[in-house]
Amino acid sequence: MRWTKVMLTILLAASLSTPHTAARAQQASEPTIQQILRDQADAWNRGDVEAFMHAYKDAPDTTFIGKSIQRGYLPILERYKKAYPNKDAMGTLDFSEIAVRELGADHAVVTGRFHLSRNTAGGGDASGIFSLIWEKTPQGWKIILDHTSVDTK
Amino acid sequence: MRWTKVMLTILLAASLSTPHTAARAQQASEPTIQQILRDQADAWNRGDVEAFMHAYKDAPDTTFIGKSIQRGYLPILERYKKAYPNKDAMGTLDFSEIAVRELGADHAVVTGRFHLSRNTAGGGDASGIFSLIWEKTPQGWKIILDHTSVDTK
Repeated sequence: MRWTKVMLTILLAASLSTPHTAARAQQASEPTIQQILRDQADAWNRGDVEAFMHAYKDAPDTTFIGKSIQRGYLPILERYKKAYPNKDAMGTLDFSEIAVRELGADHAVVTGRFHLSRNTAGGGDASGIFSLIWEKTPQGWKIILDHTSVDTK
Repeated sequence: MRWTKVMLTILLAASLSTPHTAARAQQASEPTIQQILRDQADAWNRGDVEAFMHAYKDAPDTTFIGKSIQRGYLPILERYKKAYPNKDAMGTLDFSEIAVRELGADHAVVTGRFHLSRNTAGGGDASGIFSLIWEKTPQGWKIILDHTSVDTK
């Protein structure tokens, strides 16, 4: 009798802690990630590249794929600063067609499109597709890989 | 005494089943994925697009990002057949700079470069960068998202 109770308690605890927690974590990631992307676009649109970068994980293996494969938070930040040296070059950023897909409880992939409205001095409009891999870190959901392809005319 | 033994057995079973299994699964994925990529290149190089596609998960949410975002196994297969209609267009495929990164126990991301050696009739050489998201399915490790950017001259 006591044995049965012990086993039942253990089984109940196990069933409560594993799948339910995972399901809850998964449901919670999408609105959180959507909000981070909105914050990121807002940071970009006020010319704050450092704040824009807060969405990325500050780690040496954080990866940005554009024309080449680049690794490390600081090199990625430097690339952004070099590629978008001023407000004209940064223009106004807008994300669309955002789709979030869970990869287990601690990772997700987000696909979507970006559009940059820019004047001629800034290089004119630009657009493209991205896929972002996110990790749930102690500092919140962070991008660990960004693959962005720019539309060619 | 019996209680202590029961608890120790439970703790031991728990410690053996969770982190060690996950670590083993993670270490096992890299050589498996590397082998699938070799098989995939071999299939391509003998002109077998159907066998090449076996690396992808046969699911409606399997995604290919090239110039656009495409979803579904069959649409992706049709795209490959249309873009590479014959042996000249397929050319000889070679992967390089393959890097595998685990995303939990059941997912991984692979980055790398591809190179297609082709004659003039086939459209000439082509190359680019890819990021592939993999899922451990009952049918083995499968690509669930392929983002490929072609180098522009």
